[in-house]
Amino acid sequence: MPKVVDHAQRRGELAEALWRVLRREGVHRTTVRTVAAEAGCSPSALRHYFTTQDEMLTFAMRQVADRARARIAEVPRDGEPREVVERILLEVLPLDDERRLENEVWIAFNGRALVDAGLRAVRDETYDALRALCADCAAALAGERLTPARAAAAGRELNLLLDGLALHVALRPELWPARQVRSALRRYLDERFGD
Amino acid sequence: MPKVVDHAQRRGELAEALWRVLRREGVHRTTVRTVAAEAGCSPSALRHYFTTQDEMLTFAMRQVADRARARIAEVPRDGEPREVVERILLEVLPLDDERRLENEVWIAFNGRALVDAGLRAVRDETYDALRALCADCAAALAGERLTPARAAAAGRELNLLLDGLALHVALRPELWPARQVRSALRRYLDERFGD
Repeated sequence: MPKVVDHAQRRGELAEALWRVLRREGVHRTTVRTVAAEAGCSPSALRHYFTTQDEMLTFAMRQVADRARARIAEVPRDGEPREVVERILLEVLPLDDERRLENEVWIAFNGRALVDAGLRAVRDETYDALRALCADCAAALAGERLTPARAAAAGRELNLLLDGLALHVALRPELWPARQVRSALRRYLDERFGD
Repeated sequence: MPKVVDHAQRRGELAEALWRVLRREGVHRTTVRTVAAEAGCSPSALRHYFTTQDEMLTFAMRQVADRARARIAEVPRDGEPREVVERILLEVLPLDDERRLENEVWIAFNGRALVDAGLRAVRDETYDALRALCADCAAALAGERLTPARAAAAGRELNLLLDGLALHVALRPELWPARQVRSALRRYLDERFGD
């Protein structure tokens, strides 16, 4: 009788090994070889699930996007637009260790996508998703006080601000404790969308 | 009589080979081996100048910072604070091909510095230099209208906006032609520091 292998379970275990290597070694040392070693299997066994380094990075990047989407879906929608928007935007910022790692993967992934055309589809998907989210948030905050064109510009600017913040948290975490990140976001929303 | 080698000239030639490889292959494929091949010398000959990949990347990153500093030093200081600040900030944004490449090196370098402690000294130097520049610009624009604490917060926010902008130009150049980058900066300065 052939050995029964639960492929979904095995893929989940390999994904965990992948994230442990990402955390410890960084994106450019996360290779088929290092992840196989972490998972205690041979590179050729790992290749049943992930053929190349780019495939593993794309898988990890999709997980980052999926987790953010799931967190946003769970945000309570009751209350004033400003409260709801703030809750949503705080979910895409790196405010705890797990999201800090996801954020670092996002930055390193983007750096790689500059030269690896194979990574660009998922990079563009995640970029467009955040762009749409920021446009919706800006429109909700602007209400009828801004023209559609100005609300769209405000959404693009909010997107720049959020990504700048995410980048800075990764580069200089000691300057950006969670409290500081929250207050930078709140101050910006107050100044830009306050009455 | 021993062969006379002009070390400074040779280093300059190798730096040019390094930038050609960075442009074509990206940061993670810019290695002692690929740069030596580009320069038409052996890896061991290149190692008289650059011992490791980290040393080459650090050298390139310092050149990016030096060029930005030189451009800023040449900005005319005549005119209203707003005009001068805008001229200065446009010098650190990726508005032409050369600066787009420098910007991509900066992003990829930052991605690498997340896991390579050897790169962090120069990363922190460049981060701190831009932070100080933004603080000075915000203070000049705020004049006496903001308290020092609020001017400092405005400087940090300006820094976030600029870095978000640089990141977006690298990720989605087709969405961010130079005209669009300039108008995003101007709109932000108008909203944040306008009378």
